[in-house]
Amino acid sequence: MSNQRYRVENLQQFCANVFVSLGLPSGDADVAANSLIRSELEGAGSHGISRLAIYSKRLREGRIASTPKMSMETFGSVIKVDGGNGLGQVVAYHTLQAAMPLAKKYGLAGAFIKNSNHFGTAAYFCQIACQEKMVLIAMTNSPPGIPPWGGKRAYFGTNPIAFGFPVRQEPPVIVDMSSSVVARGKIILAAKLGQSIPFGWAIDEEGRETTDPSAALRGAVLPLGGAKGYALAMAIEVVCGVLSGAAFGPHVNNLYNDQDPAANVGHFFLVLDIEKWMNLDDYFLRMDQFLQEVKETPIAKDFEEILYPGERRYRTYLQNKTSGIDLSPEIQQELEQLGAGCGVPWPASVR
Amino acid sequence: MSNQRYRVENLQQFCANVFVSLGLPSGDADVAANSLIRSELEGAGSHGISRLAIYSKRLREGRIASTPKMSMETFGSVIKVDGGNGLGQVVAYHTLQAAMPLAKKYGLAGAFIKNSNHFGTAAYFCQIACQEKMVLIAMTNSPPGIPPWGGKRAYFGTNPIAFGFPVRQEPPVIVDMSSSVVARGKIILAAKLGQSIPFGWAIDEEGRETTDPSAALRGAVLPLGGAKGYALAMAIEVVCGVLSGAAFGPHVNNLYNDQDPAANVGHFFLVLDIEKWMNLDDYFLRMDQFLQEVKETPIAKDFEEILYPGERRYRTYLQNKTSGIDLSPEIQQELEQLGAGCGVPWPASVR
Repeated sequence: MSNQRYRVENLQQFCANVFVSLGLPSGDADVAANSLIRSELEGAGSHGISRLAIYSKRLREGRIASTPKMSMETFGSVIKVDGGNGLGQVVAYHTLQAAMPLAKKYGLAGAFIKNSNHFGTAAYFCQIACQEKMVLIAMTNSPPGIPPWGGKRAYFGTNPIAFGFPVRQEPPVIVDMSSSVVARGKIILAAKLGQSIPFGWAIDEEGRETTDPSAALRGAVLPLGGAKGYALAMAIEVVCGVLSGAAFGPHVNNLYNDQDPAANVGHFFLVLDIEKWMNLDDYFLRMDQFLQEVKETPIAKDFEEILYPGERRYRTYLQNKTSGIDLSPEIQQELEQLGAGCGVPWPASVR
Repeated sequence: MSNQRYRVENLQQFCANVFVSLGLPSGDADVAANSLIRSELEGAGSHGISRLAIYSKRLREGRIASTPKMSMETFGSVIKVDGGNGLGQVVAYHTLQAAMPLAKKYGLAGAFIKNSNHFGTAAYFCQIACQEKMVLIAMTNSPPGIPPWGGKRAYFGTNPIAFGFPVRQEPPVIVDMSSSVVARGKIILAAKLGQSIPFGWAIDEEGRETTDPSAALRGAVLPLGGAKGYALAMAIEVVCGVLSGAAFGPHVNNLYNDQDPAANVGHFFLVLDIEKWMNLDDYFLRMDQFLQEVKETPIAKDFEEILYPGERRYRTYLQNKTSGIDLSPEIQQELEQLGAGCGVPWPASVR
């Protein structure tokens, strides 16, 4: 068996149908499917369709709610959200839809979300805000991945922070970075594909650097840039975990552990409605100048071009959108079996 | 001549008197002096009293306004500030004083500040917010220090991001990190003291790694963690420069260049009034648990203790506060001459 290519619409429909078969309303199923497919198209396979199996398992077990009872309370320009243990993508999407009108009213709106789950890439939500000509700053915590500086056991999640800034001509500027050297998703994917990981990414349970992704998943991921990454991971843990009322540190449960109950992941969104304090045309002109100047910086040796954050993923997206999505035999087999269990047929490949 | 120790109050008064002699109202002079002395006490000499000379020079030349005409406009929970080319510490302090009541009203408040200058450490403002039991997230841009990833000329500032979280028992959690491997202030201080810098901090004008701080100041500082630090520096440049209406990239002028006009630095503050959406006692209990758990993480080899961000600087502060401030001969001489030029006597040392 070899890699096969699939039409984007077919995979998207497959994911949505699986979610619907597990009880999600069709709108929520589309949101979750879109997030997975978008990541896949952008080359972020670690947050793509390879996550469908674990989400489905948790939905089937009732450890993630397919029709979560979300609640939102508004205090001035702050929304406090209880995600009702829904799929993170669904909880975050509905929160963003509530936060954007609030930002229109007050210039900015903050949302503290508890009782949620892994929400896929933060970039996905940045893109939605950018389409509405708004800025999004997004953070989330996650199960323990990073140790405190000087510690040998993971405490903090690999806690990403993301920024989305709209531009006149796509792609928007999308910064989406974990506070670890690499996202834990890359290690999970390497473990799944039986690949080794580079030195410098992670330590094993004893605190030794390792190239074995399974040992790394039992150990800890190293923080970005040493003590600074520790500090950043901690700040994000406080904002998303402590301030939202969600779990923090080792109390955030892991999707991949069969014993773990609801994850109680916390997120934070800050939405900025630029137009409230700056003429939008002026903003776009300033961004055009800024990006042009950045890209015109003299090139260093061994580089060909300066890309801004979000440019590479957008190019990959455009390319895959027309050519289709390549899946490894392992992922194909896993998904086909998953579909069979849900009564959702696996689509034919295009080659 | 050797290092000498000075009483904290004497140095604080000296700085304030110098600022008053240069036309600052006494309240503003105290704010600026407090920021310098606090940094000095915390062991952040790069943002301490060694900066007094350049601030004074720029105030005397009128390139920084001693009595800035600041203006503030409020749009919902956003304040748009024109700092009138005042000293950054003064502009940022007055902005924070306006943003905190707005956060009390709306739960959170954002302030975009243009036409300001170097504001010292962001930690200083975090401490003020924490005393009021509020969270501060602060960012600022700065003159070019970091190149885009793949570029060999600095474009972005070394753009710090800071987070201050109040706790029941001091010290508060204060994260204050530049998006470069090191703060540019450390390189400026090394140049001043005639010391070399470690490999890996910076490149010279040709893009080669260097240990010469002067060559580094003509070249560029490397971003934190490679491409991620570039992305973070860019996001901060957009928030502080583009969105505030301030200068961005190489249009931010440098305090240390005699030809440069007003710097037009931009800052961003986000103030969170926790109490608006969470019981403060609950918050403090959660933080106590969080910090205790972090500190109780099993210790890695070669470490003695786990410190949270802000703890080390607080210990140094307490120690220096009683013992006094040690100054090198170079700094003493510079300050004594500076005082003589302003009619402000240099205090006697304590040993």
